[in-house]
Parts: sequence; structure tokens; C-alpha cells
Amino acid sequence: MPNIEVCFTPEQFGLYYTKQHTVVVIDVLRATSAICTAFQHGVKKVIPVSTVEEAKSYQRPGFLVGAERNGQIVEGFDCGNSPYSYMGENVKDKTVVLTTTNGTKAIKIASVAPEVIISSLLNLEVVITYLMEQKKDVLILCSGWMGKYNLEDTICAGALVDELLKVSHTSSEDSTIGARNLYLTARDNSFGFLKASSHRRRLRKLNLNKDIKYCLEPNQTPVIPVLKGDYLELI
Amino acid sequence: MPNIEVCFTPEQFGLYYTKQHTVVVIDVLRATSAICTAFQHGVKKVIPVSTVEEAKSYQRPGFLVGAERNGQIVEGFDCGNSPYSYMGENVKDKTVVLTTTNGTKAIKIASVAPEVIISSLLNLEVVITYLMEQKKDVLILCSGWMGKYNLEDTICAGALVDELLKVSHTSSEDSTIGARNLYLTARDNSFGFLKASSHRRRLRKLNLNKDIKYCLEPNQTPVIPVLKGDYLELI
Repeated sequence: MPNIEVCFTPEQFGLYYTKQHTVVVIDVLRATSAICTAFQHGVKKVIPVSTVEEAKSYQRPGFLVGAERNGQIVEGFDCGNSPYSYMGENVKDKTVVLTTTNGTKAIKIASVAPEVIISSLLNLEVVITYLMEQKKDVLILCSGWMGKYNLEDTICAGALVDELLKVSHTSSEDSTIGARNLYLTARDNSFGFLKASSHRRRLRKLNLNKDIKYCLEPNQTPVIPVLKGDYLELI
Repeated sequence: MPNIEVCFTPEQFGLYYTKQHTVVVIDVLRATSAICTAFQHGVKKVIPVSTVEEAKSYQRPGFLVGAERNGQIVEGFDCGNSPYSYMGENVKDKTVVLTTTNGTKAIKIASVAPEVIISSLLNLEVVITYLMEQKKDVLILCSGWMGKYNLEDTICAGALVDELLKVSHTSSEDSTIGARNLYLTARDNSFGFLKASSHRRRLRKLNLNKDIKYCLEPNQTPVIPVLKGDYLELI
């Protein structure tokens, strides 16, 4: 049986990753939720970049360029990582370029893997089905917050783990058991449970309650973004 | 109200530590359990050391020297980190020197703090009372396993957090909420819950079931070991 494990932060990736792993990157609030939303609304490509400077170099026609640091849009950009920036007719067929505090960093770190897919609560079900069918070893990489563990990514990871352990996968790491356990506690009430989350409180201060509500509503889209070299496209 | 937070691994210490923190080091399986047991049985001092070579230099009369790597006693030593090595008449008034895979490393990293105390499930209650009375900011440092999160240290941390949040402390980190949540799930059944733990499975392979059973039984001793420079003594 293939293996599924959870890594709580990008900094710990090397402790869990083996060359066989399909890596699933999660940043529920909000990078991977925004990426799923963009594809759902017809975006053709998402280019995750590490620095604000790199993002700036794409500010020309045909590109929708987002830059977020510490939960806020970086000065000089029209969008950050709010999913609401990547909806509607004007995003269709565009290429999105995105740099964020945690999520794009996690994608970059994961890029050594043979396959990297993007998940969030928004595309949970379709990712579960895909991973069950693939039957490969899976490492779920939570983006966390500045190197720290966070609740929302762990709950999302736990939801994936819970379904796959029931059907197709096995696990051996304590982090995987911890994530599954947290998910089972939070299930049916993830918005309520996350009221206590530090990141959620941070975003609420920035008046992003609408974003949070959207990001915590599972199974809104059937897209699976996958990394192809330097960019993401639909699988 | 003072703050209480949980750090899952020694490697993440710098992300959570502030200069005000009293640091509580936990390595349930087995370093801090062995240390509590040693003091309970009349040991006067415990010197945690980083390397096996350093431990070797103490192999002379008056010292009881333990060295553990990967769950096993290092060749050339009589003890590792089994609590059963630090019991009985022959340990009374001795100085213990100890090097272990994770626990002594965590103590060394914590040593920058104004106060470092040692906890485990064995002295849980007395540590809770002490921290409530002190009313200082507290950082609980789990030793983990080779840089990874582990269940038993997190559950023990969660038990401390749960009591202190009810009475004397507040918290803001997601790791603290995660630890408390795990403890509340595991409570009343921590031995059963930990059956799934990776470290526990590792120790079971080494036939250390007796050690595990002992280490998971809360409140067996009222000792609080505290770091004074290079060594631990009773508070």
C-alpha cells in the first residue's frame, strides 16, 4: 500500500520527503485557495514566483499579477492572494503571476518532486479521488505561517489523510496522525473551530472575513492545478 | 495575563521563544521521564551533555553516565534513557550525566532562557501548580523525534496548556491550540491513543513496552528539575 504523510511547514520538507512522493501543497488562507479559484474561473496558467521583484517584472498586458506579504496586497499591485481577485470574466484565459508569504514558497520547495499538485478545501474531493486512483506515495505539505504550524492547513491535510487511509494508503508519521485527529475534531464545524486560529484572527483584523468564509467552504470546484516546470496548469 | 505557547520541535524554538519565557522541556519517551525518575530516587544533579564523547569523559566514580542514540544504549555505557536505570538505592546522591537523541538537545537549546524546567507526564501536576503560581510567560518545548513532531510530547504539552488556560494563562499560537486539542482527544486513554505513535512503535520493536507504560502514567512524582547553568537540580 502506498504511503501518505503530512509535513506541517515548508522548512521541515526535507525531513519527510522521499523521491517517490507526489507532493500536495496546501495554503488554505489563502494562496492555494486563490489558485484553485483562478483555474475555476478560466485562468490558463499560474506562475508562482518567490520575490516581489520577480512579480513586478510580469506587470504587462496578458498577465494578472498578485503580490501578498503578511496578509496584505503589496504596494504597486492590484491583487494579493484574495480569491475574489481571481474571479469573473476578466480573468479568463489570463496568466496569473503570484507571490505570497507562505504558499508560493511551499510550491517552490516542493518543486523537486516528480509531481506537485495544489489543494485547498475548495477542491478537496477531486484531489482525494485523484490520489486514490494514482495509488502513489503522497506527502502533504502545509504552508504554515512564517515557519510555524497552522490549524487551517493541518485540518485540510487531515481531511485528505482521513479519506485516503480508509481506502488506499497507509501512514507512519506522528504528524499524519495528529493532522487526522485535528480534522476529525474540527469536522462539521471547521469555520467555528478555526475561530481560534491565529492566522484567521490576523486576517479578521484586515477585514478579510469574506475571504475566510469562502476559503473554508469545501468542494466548490473540480480543478486540480499541477506544477509543470515553472508554472501551474490544470492536470 | 501571562502567555503559554507550545513549540513542537527544538529546531523551531527561535520562532516561538521570547526572552521572557520560562521554558518547559518535554521528552516523554524517554529523556525527561528518566530525569524526573532520577530525582525522585534521590539523584542530586543531572548534567545533560550534547555528545557521546562528552558523556564518556564523566565515566568515573560518583557519576552515573547514560547515553542513548536512536532508542538504544550506546556501546560502552551501562545506561541509556530508560527510567528504570535511574531507580533504586544505588542512584541516591549520585550525579547523573546524560546524552540522548532528542531530549538533551532540547535542554541545551532552551538554556538561553531565564528559567528552564523539566516536565514529563510523571510530574505533570506539580509543574502545573508551579507555573500557575509563577504567573510568567511559558514556552513548552517538545523534544520531538529528529526534528519531527511527535504525539507523546504534544499530548503532555497539551495537558499543561489545558490546565493553565483555564486558570492563569492565555495563548495565541495555533500550535498551542493544536496541542490542547490533541490532549483533549487523547485524555483518559493516552496509552491507547499512543499505540499509533511512531516513536512508541519504534520503542516496542526494541522491547521497551515496560518503559513506555511507566512513562505514560501521569503524576508519579512531585519533583521539578530546573536548569542551573550546566546542570539540573531540584527547584
